[in-house]
Amino acid sequence: MKIRIGIVGYGNLGRGVECALKQNGDMELYGVFTRRAPESVKTLTNVNVYHIDDILKHKENIDVLVICGGSATDLPTQTPQLAHNFNVVDSFDTHAKIPEHFERVDKAAKEGKNVAMISVGWDPGMFSLNRLYAEAILPEGKDYTFWGKGVSQGHSDAIRRIEGVIDARQYTIPVDEALNSVRDGENPELTTRQKHIRECFVVAADNADKELIEKQIKEMPNYFADYDTTVHFISMEEMKENHSTLPHGGVVLRSGKTGLNSENNHIIEYSLKLDSNPEFTASVLVAFARAAFRMSGEGMYGCKTVFDVPPAYLSSESGENLRKRIL
Amino acid sequence: MKIRIGIVGYGNLGRGVECALKQNGDMELYGVFTRRAPESVKTLTNVNVYHIDDILKHKENIDVLVICGGSATDLPTQTPQLAHNFNVVDSFDTHAKIPEHFERVDKAAKEGKNVAMISVGWDPGMFSLNRLYAEAILPEGKDYTFWGKGVSQGHSDAIRRIEGVIDARQYTIPVDEALNSVRDGENPELTTRQKHIRECFVVAADNADKELIEKQIKEMPNYFADYDTTVHFISMEEMKENHSTLPHGGVVLRSGKTGLNSENNHIIEYSLKLDSNPEFTASVLVAFARAAFRMSGEGMYGCKTVFDVPPAYLSSESGENLRKRIL
Repeated sequence: MKIRIGIVGYGNLGRGVECALKQNGDMELYGVFTRRAPESVKTLTNVNVYHIDDILKHKENIDVLVICGGSATDLPTQTPQLAHNFNVVDSFDTHAKIPEHFERVDKAAKEGKNVAMISVGWDPGMFSLNRLYAEAILPEGKDYTFWGKGVSQGHSDAIRRIEGVIDARQYTIPVDEALNSVRDGENPELTTRQKHIRECFVVAADNADKELIEKQIKEMPNYFADYDTTVHFISMEEMKENHSTLPHGGVVLRSGKTGLNSENNHIIEYSLKLDSNPEFTASVLVAFARAAFRMSGEGMYGCKTVFDVPPAYLSSESGENLRKRIL
Repeated sequence: MKIRIGIVGYGNLGRGVECALKQNGDMELYGVFTRRAPESVKTLTNVNVYHIDDILKHKENIDVLVICGGSATDLPTQTPQLAHNFNVVDSFDTHAKIPEHFERVDKAAKEGKNVAMISVGWDPGMFSLNRLYAEAILPEGKDYTFWGKGVSQGHSDAIRRIEGVIDARQYTIPVDEALNSVRDGENPELTTRQKHIRECFVVAADNADKELIEKQIKEMPNYFADYDTTVHFISMEEMKENHSTLPHGGVVLRSGKTGLNSENNHIIEYSLKLDSNPEFTASVLVAFARAAFRMSGEGMYGCKTVFDVPPAYLSSESGENLRKRIL
């Protein structure tokens, strides 16, 4: 009996989940749920598409829903709503609002006696786990998270909202000097500007004032003003040819001391180099959907995060095999 | 009320645990238990030292024992014995014998209704965890573990047993070419020789036949025969000055594919650079001792490994704080 998964929302992330499920023999995709007209949605694997309003009719056929909406407007309402009736996993990634999202989802999941796993992905997600493990092992130390090189969709969108911009892609790039200083155990204090640079590729309208666009980008508060930013104007052809994929990645480091007089230094580093940000995030979601199913099967319920999941629950293999093969 | 820890065995690892406990405000060291005459053992922090034969008298004063013996002869008997009466953590690291160690310890821990956490450290331990997470996320992929640069104590001991050798230190070093090929997503098939080189520093007796020693090292089956090995003869002064510490580390990588046609590649890398192998291992043991205490407090018992521990149990902070601060 396979674990039956439903996908809610069919964008890049939903398609990523659809692909990831093909790699997991103990799981199967029951269907995709969308707000659009189902007949207008063509899936990669020809799985059934249903309207989200009909989802309760499928309750008995679904073990876990993977909710693939956005953190700004979709997940804050969708995840609590669906957690009343389903085990769910989401990738809510607005770090500052995680506590309130947790509270809302926890209440719903407890009422429905379901497991609701939130903020699953790589940051929050695998990066958070690595911050936690590293801090627990080396309490006297310092944490660093670098993102990139990769496309920041939020920053790309912000550029697209500038008048005269037709398309834009923004890459976040860690500053090598800062990264190497951390790796060398120098425990530097780093400003925002010292950690990352931002590189922008912009397609401007023919009659646009490029100088003004560049100025507006570089001075944009929160998004660019605190960074060294470079802007390149390119053609639409070049955009399509060289900037159509969504790579990302990053590094979490902890540098900490041990010894009677803190005489020894240790560096723990976790890094990701991802060809496709949404497909990797989807792969993490699918592994945690398995865990949600198992935890629910053991009678657990309520809101959970990656911090609450015994790692063995992520694998389809028995504890015995895992101990033998990879411990 | 602090978590009260007992240390069993007082070598490099036991001293490391003693130091690590000073960094964890929610834990305290109750005492050290040794097979030696207690009055002959001088601890770093002047904690009480007791004979191991008297340990049951202290049962009510100890929440978790951290067993710091060796995997060859100490742990196979000590861990099951002590798990009858205490929550315990050990660093059993003979990978091939983990299943049988697990069985023995599980039986004892279940009889005593205690939590016994085995094979805690960095490999097995943190490296195993990273192999598990990475494999669960990227089921279509390939795993690589590299060790070093660092001192292998087993290999150093093997050299010391050769006639004419007064002292020896062996460094295991990953081959950069192999490591970079994996990092570049080339998914190479690597032989033992292609992954690591072995560098040996040897102090020979005045009248020793150095050529013969070098030959005996390089041809030693299992330890050196399958590797490119270099041997340097040095003076005892040089050994003391340049090779007295026990650094180690290594890298766990997984390179895996996602996408409808496996068109995207992802690299997950976890690496450690450790000034002191025993102190880092001790720090991992202490974090998992906290988890053992909590799991026991919730009524769990039996043998556990790092795969069974929800990461939040490793931290002294509340779930709420962890979600707010590092998720």
